Amino acid sequence: MATREFIVRMNDTTTSPNFSLNNLTGVGRLDLACRAVSSALFLSHSIRKNSKIYVNLNGPPSPPVTILFDAKNLKRVYPDERNIASHIRIALKKFDKKEIFTETEPGIFIAKKSFEELIKEKNKKADIYYLSKDGKDIRKFKFNLEKDLCFILGDHKGIPKKTEKFLDELGIKKISVGEIEYLASQVITIVHYELDRRLASR
Amino acid sequence: MATREFIVRMNDTTTSPNFSLNNLTGVGRLDLACRAVSSALFLSHSIRKNSKIYVNLNGPPSPPVTILFDAKNLKRVYPDERNIASHIRIALKKFDKKEIFTETEPGIFIAKKSFEELIKEKNKKADIYYLSKDGKDIRKFKFNLEKDLCFILGDHKGIPKKTEKFLDELGIKKISVGEIEYLASQVITIVHYELDRRLASR
Repeated sequence: MATREFIVRMNDTTTSPNFSLNNLTGVGRLDLACRAVSSALFLSHSIRKNSKIYVNLNGPPSPPVTILFDAKNLKRVYPDERNIASHIRIALKKFDKKEIFTETEPGIFIAKKSFEELIKEKNKKADIYYLSKDGKDIRKFKFNLEKDLCFILGDHKGIPKKTEKFLDELGIKKISVGEIEYLASQVITIVHYELDRRLASR
Repeated sequence: MATREFIVRMNDTTTSPNFSLNNLTGVGRLDLACRAVSSALFLSHSIRKNSKIYVNLNGPPSPPVTILFDAKNLKRVYPDERNIASHIRIALKKFDKKEIFTETEPGIFIAKKSFEELIKEKNKKADIYYLSKDGKDIRKFKFNLEKDLCFILGDHKGIPKKTEKFLDELGIKKISVGEIEYLASQVITIVHYELDRRLASR
């Protein structure tokens, strides 16, 4: 089964493990990132074994950092924000500052990797799409369901203009879930749902 | 604009305010209820003013209790689980045990009301649907978008057989979002999305 991957670019989320699990919103909206992970990987009583999500952190003190959750091997990860944040904190604690992904817990990896580096790597392997209001309607879009698909999302502040230009220059296509600006986690749910529908009707 | 309402029936969620915001999963999956509230009411940078969600709690010590979040008047409520849980705790603290809804904070109401009583009241005013895997496909379903629509969801343990029978006897229709069992919060997102699509294409 082809994989579904998500990349969420967080503008201000902390890159230090020294935060309290009681204040996820205050460290650059880590709550938003955790909900995105939850939507990307979990179903009721099960996990989407073919899904991955990269959380790209660009907040202080030492950006960029990218954390990968690969559903296939996850253990003791649950859909609530606090649990997911606790695993992000462990990853940041164990972070060896290497530029390649190092596993910190089963299925969880961390690397000193920028959004741009990550996209360039992914672009060689998967069909990448950027979720944007002015993209093509996802419902009419023909995906190659045999290929790995990768979806890029911004946080509440969106993807910076410069980064949008970078994506455009790589030829990355924009797709849209409609006129309404949903939360990032909701967009992920909608993307999964549209692809689930596609697979179910084959 | 017609309202969209959701009713989430929580089998075991606490009806006492004496819980820690650090352990929402441990008090009958309050985390799940909070995510449902978040999905029902929030968009990116905005709130769905025409949406309401009823969280029906059936856990110890004094079930049933129903808490209503009415987006129209909410203040200082945010999409993260901990914030929503804090408002639920305030509602339970201020609870006067009355059978009619009493406002505990702007837009938040609480009542000593069972799931069955709530459904009977709603059934007089709105078109009610029960989200169930063996229901009619939501995508093919013709909703009356001029009317208030109300959607019933279960938690991770589902709606008990006896309660399903009660819904069936009231003639409440079942609709389905597909074969996959999504998290309750994801089902809410999908229902909103399907209705948003319907409205956008009119």
